[in-house]
Amino acid sequence: MIINCVAYQNGYKLADIQVGEIHLYIHEPDCFVWVALADPEPVELEAMRKEFGLHELAVEDAQHGHQRPKIEEYGQSLFVVLQMIEPLDGDLNVGEVDIFVGKNYVLSVRSRAKRGFTDVRNRCEAEPELLQHGPGYVLYALMDAVVDRYFPVLDALETELEDIEERIFANQAVRANIEALYGLKQKLMILKHAAEPLLEATSKLFGGRVPQHCAGLDDYFRDVYDHLLRLNQSIDSMRDMVSTAISVNLSLITLQESEVTKRLAACAALVAVPTMIVGIYGMNFDYMPELRSPYGYPLVLGVMAAIDGYLFWRFRKAKWL
Amino acid sequence: MIINCVAYQNGYKLADIQVGEIHLYIHEPDCFVWVALADPEPVELEAMRKEFGLHELAVEDAQHGHQRPKIEEYGQSLFVVLQMIEPLDGDLNVGEVDIFVGKNYVLSVRSRAKRGFTDVRNRCEAEPELLQHGPGYVLYALMDAVVDRYFPVLDALETELEDIEERIFANQAVRANIEALYGLKQKLMILKHAAEPLLEATSKLFGGRVPQHCAGLDDYFRDVYDHLLRLNQSIDSMRDMVSTAISVNLSLITLQESEVTKRLAACAALVAVPTMIVGIYGMNFDYMPELRSPYGYPLVLGVMAAIDGYLFWRFRKAKWL
Amino acid sequence: MIINCVAYQNGYKLADIQVGEIHLYIHEPDCFVWVALADPEPVELEAMRKEFGLHELAVEDAQHGHQRPKIEEYGQSLFVVLQMIEPLDGDLNVGEVDIFVGKNYVLSVRSRAKRGFTDVRNRCEAEPELLQHGPGYVLYALMDAVVDRYFPVLDALETELEDIEERIFANQAVRANIEALYGLKQKLMILKHAAEPLLEATSKLFGGRVPQHCAGLDDYFRDVYDHLLRLNQSIDSMRDMVSTAISVNLSLITLQESEVTKRLAACAALVAVPTMIVGIYGMNFDYMPELRSPYGYPLVLGVMAAIDGYLFWRFRKAKWL
Amino acid sequence: MIINCVAYQNGYKLADIQVGEIHLYIHEPDCFVWVALADPEPVELEAMRKEFGLHELAVEDAQHGHQRPKIEEYGQSLFVVLQMIEPLDGDLNVGEVDIFVGKNYVLSVRSRAKRGFTDVRNRCEAEPELLQHGPGYVLYALMDAVVDRYFPVLDALETELEDIEERIFANQAVRANIEALYGLKQKLMILKHAAEPLLEATSKLFGGRVPQHCAGLDDYFRDVYDHLLRLNQSIDSMRDMVSTAISVNLSLITLQESEVTKRLAACAALVAVPTMIVGIYGMNFDYMPELRSPYGYPLVLGVMAAIDGYLFWRFRKAKWL
Amino acid sequence: MIINCVAYQNGYKLADIQVGEIHLYIHEPDCFVWVALADPEPVELEAMRKEFGLHELAVEDAQHGHQRPKIEEYGQSLFVVLQMIEPLDGDLNVGEVDIFVGKNYVLSVRSRAKRGFTDVRNRCEAEPELLQHGPGYVLYALMDAVVDRYFPVLDALETELEDIEERIFANQAVRANIEALYGLKQKLMILKHAAEPLLEATSKLFGGRVPQHCAGLDDYFRDVYDHLLRLNQSIDSMRDMVSTAISVNLSLITLQESEVTKRLAACAALVAVPTMIVGIYGMNFDYMPELRSPYGYPLVLGVMAAIDGYLFWRFRKAKWL
Repeated sequence: MIINCVAYQNGYKLADIQVGEIHLYIHEPDCFVWVALADPEPVELEAMRKEFGLHELAVEDAQHGHQRPKIEEYGQSLFVVLQMIEPLDGDLNVGEVDIFVGKNYVLSVRSRAKRGFTDVRNRCEAEPELLQHGPGYVLYALMDAVVDRYFPVLDALETELEDIEERIFANQAVRANIEALYGLKQKLMILKHAAEPLLEATSKLFGGRVPQHCAGLDDYFRDVYDHLLRLNQSIDSMRDMVSTAISVNLSLITLQESEVTKRLAACAALVAVPTMIVGIYGMNFDYMPELRSPYGYPLVLGVMAAIDGYLFWRFRKAKWL
Repeated sequence: MIINCVAYQNGYKLADIQVGEIHLYIHEPDCFVWVALADPEPVELEAMRKEFGLHELAVEDAQHGHQRPKIEEYGQSLFVVLQMIEPLDGDLNVGEVDIFVGKNYVLSVRSRAKRGFTDVRNRCEAEPELLQHGPGYVLYALMDAVVDRYFPVLDALETELEDIEERIFANQAVRANIEALYGLKQKLMILKHAAEPLLEATSKLFGGRVPQHCAGLDDYFRDVYDHLLRLNQSIDSMRDMVSTAISVNLSLITLQESEVTKRLAACAALVAVPTMIVGIYGMNFDYMPELRSPYGYPLVLGVMAAIDGYLFWRFRKAKWL
Repeated sequence: MIINCVAYQNGYKLADIQVGEIHLYIHEPDCFVWVALADPEPVELEAMRKEFGLHELAVEDAQHGHQRPKIEEYGQSLFVVLQMIEPLDGDLNVGEVDIFVGKNYVLSVRSRAKRGFTDVRNRCEAEPELLQHGPGYVLYALMDAVVDRYFPVLDALETELEDIEERIFANQAVRANIEALYGLKQKLMILKHAAEPLLEATSKLFGGRVPQHCAGLDDYFRDVYDHLLRLNQSIDSMRDMVSTAISVNLSLITLQESEVTKRLAACAALVAVPTMIVGIYGMNFDYMPELRSPYGYPLVLGVMAAIDGYLFWRFRKAKWL
Repeated sequence: MIINCVAYQNGYKLADIQVGEIHLYIHEPDCFVWVALADPEPVELEAMRKEFGLHELAVEDAQHGHQRPKIEEYGQSLFVVLQMIEPLDGDLNVGEVDIFVGKNYVLSVRSRAKRGFTDVRNRCEAEPELLQHGPGYVLYALMDAVVDRYFPVLDALETELEDIEERIFANQAVRANIEALYGLKQKLMILKHAAEPLLEATSKLFGGRVPQHCAGLDDYFRDVYDHLLRLNQSIDSMRDMVSTAISVNLSLITLQESEVTKRLAACAALVAVPTMIVGIYGMNFDYMPELRSPYGYPLVLGVMAAIDGYLFWRFRKAKWL
Repeated sequence: MIINCVAYQNGYKLADIQVGEIHLYIHEPDCFVWVALADPEPVELEAMRKEFGLHELAVEDAQHGHQRPKIEEYGQSLFVVLQMIEPLDGDLNVGEVDIFVGKNYVLSVRSRAKRGFTDVRNRCEAEPELLQHGPGYVLYALMDAVVDRYFPVLDALETELEDIEERIFANQAVRANIEALYGLKQKLMILKHAAEPLLEATSKLFGGRVPQHCAGLDDYFRDVYDHLLRLNQSIDSMRDMVSTAISVNLSLITLQESEVTKRLAACAALVAVPTMIVGIYGMNFDYMPELRSPYGYPLVLGVMAAIDGYLFWRFRKAKWL
């Protein structure tokens, strides 16, 4: 599905154009075309391939989807794959945006993702002095948007971890916490798969030799790189904390079992000792003088109560009860 | 066993030829011979060595088998070792394909693997404009096929992990899960051994200085490299998740034991307290007025029921029962 | 809020000046202006941007805050982000100081941190022969101060770890220890986030090619680098020890449970055996000769005591009691 | 002890010679002397040092022994230290072979190892066209032999691991398994200490600049390197699997305890409930109509059996018994 | 405190000299002064700074102490920090030696360490042909001595680990073992902090560009490097083994608990079953024919013994008892 197809000149929007008109604009000086597709049909991609002269292997990748994030040069053009991570029913949905950048065109192909890039286009059109940089700037704007959208996802995961931590130390919902920690780790892996390969790829867009369409935008791409670095560091820290939380949780479960065992032992003692005593006076010996005494029964009851009282006090002191 | 022995010119198949005729074609311009062996006898390999002038160390490696994946240059020729991973009765079978690539020939030697490369040859013959690139393109086609066949194996392992996860959190088949996680880890190591060394080796086939037979095919070998990178990343993630699953599983087992202990404690209490009480009235004291009362027995039964009812309610509330 | 705005010449303080006068001093030879802001309003930052001609992306970063520590070059000027770690109610407060360094100016922007840099300024003014080096030296002085302030934080964490270790091996406050270890790990991660990115960044300020304002100060920045290296190493060691402490703690909890179980078993035996014996003599068989004997009762009591005495001795020897 | 002292020319054995004659051969063109010592006396080493002009530090290392594997250049000569790993009474014996390689000589000094290199010498003498390469080829032959001897050791460890795995999952010899896994890890560390440093050292004998005596033998040393790489990878995998086996084993022990606890709980219930019931009818109340009935006793026995039957069925279903 | 202050020429000792005379010797050709301080007063260091023209930052470091091991160049002079590890009451004492090396002088400053370097000086003076190399050789001799002294410390830790291992597998002193393993890890960290930073620093003293005073001593510094490499490797292995020992120990504790639980269960069964039976015959039913029989009592005792015998045999076979 074609979302947008717009021609720009010197940073200003010329017109919404038809796919068939692209070749009219693409060879004008200082002019470039920015096309946005979403979940395209093979035939649409094929049309684009012809219109822009895209490399076959790149188009194939875009067709198949499920690529790892990467930035590749095919001759004069750049092929960029980004993953879009969107929360969906407590899980993370992994979408993809493939961007083809050439001298006079940008083609973005979004797949399996809800949120589009209309806001990016609007912001770009509002700053013609920046958009004047051409397709490279559009690439930056799209990458920046995708990376910036990772942060709320990460924040949500951090909040989730904090909630779990709280429940862990409050001894609540032990079983659910374990499952939640495992799920959190899975989500962190998804985010890591999106961010880590991109980090290395982005590092080639500034500094030393850069693809020609990105020339002069070093400060911008370094900014994206910096965000990715921060993101990766936070992901790694969180993975570390999740592992720690899992072992801490195990310690707490073991500790709790130990406490239950102590309690069980204490209660057993409180019951078993009187049981033994009453057993003694249930014996049928002919000659048991205590049994004859009128004070025998209350005395035995008293002794039993006293012993239990003493045991109870001992166990309390030892924090077994 | 010789599977195929075919001569090609300018990307088109010339003829199925005999081993003895190879030298007739091998020196023709724009002509190359592609031979496929499977589990060859030493004498067959020796014949090939003479026919193509292969390096002794490489042939020895192919003879012995059980090499690690690698790409080595012997003078003008390339020697490539790939591992073929095939599922076999719930386990992974590790086969091997050794590929010798020279100016005018490709020799592939498949060992201990069921599935051959007839589909690769057919696809190549169907695209003469690509096969025209010569032996380097055949190498690409074979590597691409081998690497692509890793993915269904990985997918199967991922499904296996998901199944185990489900059973873990449903508290089913605990002992079997542990064994399954261990087996999964072993299979991941096998896959890793096949994919990791290849990643580094493949990186030398594009970019900077490349072996001469691979020149001009950078985009293709980069594509293989990219698949390997994705594969390796997925393997590493899965290994991480397997480790996490093992510790999460331990937590759940410990938790379950803790729950059993609680239940044991609760049940013991429900039985032990009445036992103590009935013991009291089993004592043989002469002077126990309760024993004389006609309401004694029902009252004691009632008290016992009341205590157990109260305890049961308490344990339920504390989730011990 | 503007804290200070001072002009210096040849290392000596010229005058406290107004923001509006900055441009008068900034183009004088051997003269530079050092401005300190704390939690500035956007409008203050904007004024500074105009006065000093700061880069937009850098100012944006300073505006947003919550950057990772970094050192970036924007044309002729340097932009440095440092994190300030201050203990706050048993937790760690993360502040930030952003430093802009140009040929004739230093601007430090402190956010979310209590302690300022008045002591740094005083020390600098007391050593004019060093301050003569210009803005680069001020940058060193600020970085040195920030890094030096990490050490007491680390020392406090080390003391905390030692306290926890002591309690762990004294078997005290088991549950609190687990929570404390987890909290300690979190604080170490905060410190690591401040120190680790800075280490790599600082390494670019001495040795090979360095930003022009830092030229001639290699020995000084190497000193800062050295401190950071030591800090990072200590943090890594502590993280390792915390992990070890967590597993050691788990071992001790498990061990303790094992001891409780042994004790429970021993006590149960001491009570259960006599209970069984008294049960025997509570049976109602007509023909039980022992019941008739006048020595039966004391004998049984004696046997019970003897058995318990023996068991007690055995359990003591086996350290179960 | 001198094992062999032989002079070679153009790859063919000239004669077994005396130590005192070495200088007569060592300066002949195309001629070299290969001396093999085993557990030499200091005086023997000193004689060699003088005869060949060895570097003092290298001879000192050979004298002391217990070096880490390494390859060092002392001027025109090479000094190579290899560890020989031999199984000895279920443990691994670490021997050492120090090799001095010069223009016209090879001196190998074997210490604390049983198996010598007679087979290597025989194979070399059988292939004069290869031995013609001179001392460098002898070095390759010795290194190749040492590295090849690591593989059966590794295979034995792999078999050991498989045996332990089997016993683990068959729940046999739990305590012995733990000890065996620990011992296996120790042996892997020994093997790793032998193989890992050698890997890096060997990488300097082919490819770029190589020591002069190794020139022209790149393919051979790359082969050794390749074997070492495979060895190291296998060692790392095994270490990983041993760690996994240890945690899996812990899970199984914990699981088993959990099962024992369940069983204990079930059995306790089967006994405790009837005990409570018989206690009821052991009470001495005057008014207990059941006691009077002739069906009382069999009924109670029946009820008890019924309850236990029901409980048994419940526990069986829940897999507690 | 000044320990020694000696002038050397061409490797031979000239004279013990006064601090005030240093400048007389320091400018003589082929002459150098070697001063040794121990726990110096600030005033002594200040005197040295003036006498030798030391860099302020280096002197400050030596003054403060507690530096990490490092090798730094300040203009023409070298500043080396080494840590001295000495066993002290079962713990490790961390001392420090700071070495300043210039063209004609060596100054060693030892702090918080008992053992001095008199033996090093004696050995150097005994080999004038080596001492002739000048201050660089003295630096080597000191570094070699410090590094060599790490080995007995490491050996002691290895012996400690072996002792703990033995106790672990003999099931002795479980609680003490855990504490010992933790302490061992702490000591390994101390040793690691001393050795690891030094490894990297030493690597710059041989091979490529080296500080001028170390020129021509490559073989010697490589020897020190080699020792450090071995040390580091051993430390890393030991850390790995300590971690493994901790988890193995946890497994053994858990296993032991499992065995105690089994034993408890078995003993409970042996007592509970007879208790239930005697309970039956303690019931007060009018109609219980067994009670009337003269064989009832011995028969019941026999049945109880038989059941317990059978249970005992079963438990023995299952290794529960």
